[in-house]
Amino acid sequence: MENREQAEMEQNKKTSNCIGIVGLGLIGGSLGLDLQALGYQVHGLVHQSKTLERAHARGLAQVISTDPKILASCDLIILALPIDQLLKPTQSLINSLPQSAVLTDVGSVKVPVLKIWRKLHPRFVASHPMAGTANSGVESGLQNLFRNKPWIATPEQNTDTEALQTVHRLARELGSHWITADAEMHDQAVALVSHLPVLVSAALLKTVQNESNSSLLTLAQEIASSGFTDTTRIGGGNPTLGTAMMKNNTSAILDTLTNYRRNLEELEKSIISKDWLKIQNELQETQNFRPSFLKS
Amino acid sequence: MENREQAEMEQNKKTSNCIGIVGLGLIGGSLGLDLQALGYQVHGLVHQSKTLERAHARGLAQVISTDPKILASCDLIILALPIDQLLKPTQSLINSLPQSAVLTDVGSVKVPVLKIWRKLHPRFVASHPMAGTANSGVESGLQNLFRNKPWIATPEQNTDTEALQTVHRLARELGSHWITADAEMHDQAVALVSHLPVLVSAALLKTVQNESNSSLLTLAQEIASSGFTDTTRIGGGNPTLGTAMMKNNTSAILDTLTNYRRNLEELEKSIISKDWLKIQNELQETQNFRPSFLKS
Repeated sequence: MENREQAEMEQNKKTSNCIGIVGLGLIGGSLGLDLQALGYQVHGLVHQSKTLERAHARGLAQVISTDPKILASCDLIILALPIDQLLKPTQSLINSLPQSAVLTDVGSVKVPVLKIWRKLHPRFVASHPMAGTANSGVESGLQNLFRNKPWIATPEQNTDTEALQTVHRLARELGSHWITADAEMHDQAVALVSHLPVLVSAALLKTVQNESNSSLLTLAQEIASSGFTDTTRIGGGNPTLGTAMMKNNTSAILDTLTNYRRNLEELEKSIISKDWLKIQNELQETQNFRPSFLKS
Repeated sequence: MENREQAEMEQNKKTSNCIGIVGLGLIGGSLGLDLQALGYQVHGLVHQSKTLERAHARGLAQVISTDPKILASCDLIILALPIDQLLKPTQSLINSLPQSAVLTDVGSVKVPVLKIWRKLHPRFVASHPMAGTANSGVESGLQNLFRNKPWIATPEQNTDTEALQTVHRLARELGSHWITADAEMHDQAVALVSHLPVLVSAALLKTVQNESNSSLLTLAQEIASSGFTDTTRIGGGNPTLGTAMMKNNTSAILDTLTNYRRNLEELEKSIISKDWLKIQNELQETQNFRPSFLKS
């Protein structure tokens, strides 16, 4: 089995003219570094000539250009654009994608991506490599970003099976853990464990920021420890990315936010009614649940 | 100035018969290790003989006993009990505290502690060393726990000035950063940056735990990353400690929780009304605020 897959990969490499990456930010740049290390010819399409210079200096791809024509010879193309741009592709980008190439994306929501792209390209495979750092932009790509991370594909009934296999091979070669899921369920799951935490954490920062007593705020600053630092980390993250989450996964986020508010209000009610046994039990349950839920 | 303080410390050491620590858990055990390393004679009072054995094996104090009489020769005594026990001291403990000794505590709320202890001892100084790990109990004490951490004292008008100076010297010798504050303001500040985050984080864990769609939960488990891990860390902490916070700092916690809910609801309203510019601005503000608030 392993050997056959290895042979298939070799076959894939030989027949592959090049892999195209559209956008060389954190995800695109990291893909470029890893794919070159794996022996692939990588063509990177960027938007601005300033980015081109930096991407070139960092060696993010062998061929880097602002001209979409560089994608013509690629048989696998990865759209590594910010979600807003991914959902509003330019006509020149669409026209430059060879119909025979396998096309995939790295967007963090999948229902809106499929809504647009399933009509635009016959071999589109919606996918979401779950990797990230606090950084973004052409300086942020790094090697082995995808190793041991989940790579979720959300194929539909009409998805080209061979194209799906090609993206699967790509994920395997990058060391990712391959998962397939229904697109809607994917978006609900990321709302729950990725987008909701951003809101919860941002509201905590706002609560501190809005404290009007400056002596209290100075004291709070002195005593804020690692618990506060950790709980607010993602609420202090990239605002453009956060806004894109809210904008493109709105209904799933609002559903999970309703559940969150209910749970918080239940804890509040127990405090108001001084039901310490209930608080103790609730906190015991969350303490037990967390390690069983988190993967090592 | 420094030399005079040094001389005073030396003087203090010479005249000090011993330092008593009541309770040898995380805080008490860590104090015992550091104070012995500083050359003090440490007497540790524990509740159970099983704890005594372990504390002895770990060398948490030179003299360890379940008999409060060991405190008789101490001129500085630190109450390092869990907050519930600190607020309901036994008569035998109270009787064993020499009236001439300086007495302090390490409780994480200060108004209720002062309410009890200002009447029980003439040289009581309410204090709160801000140090902790996820662990508790006799096995958890470790060296240098207090180094570079804030140590907040909340003196009142009637607090013995000399006793306050003694506790200040203690904090300095342990490498802590000394702060004095009003007790009520202290409790509001810890509600904001320490107790509120526990609730916010626990409600997030509850929301995931209560998800009824098991396929969705399995997928969420696969994709939960460091953002989720960090945001839920303190919500999955010690339930007894969390309950004690809620029980003993109730009104400050409820106040800050009301503010938190309002901030979260405001974010929710912006999402419902698709006001992405407002969301972007809010997240930009939290991104700017966090590093300015967090101390390095």
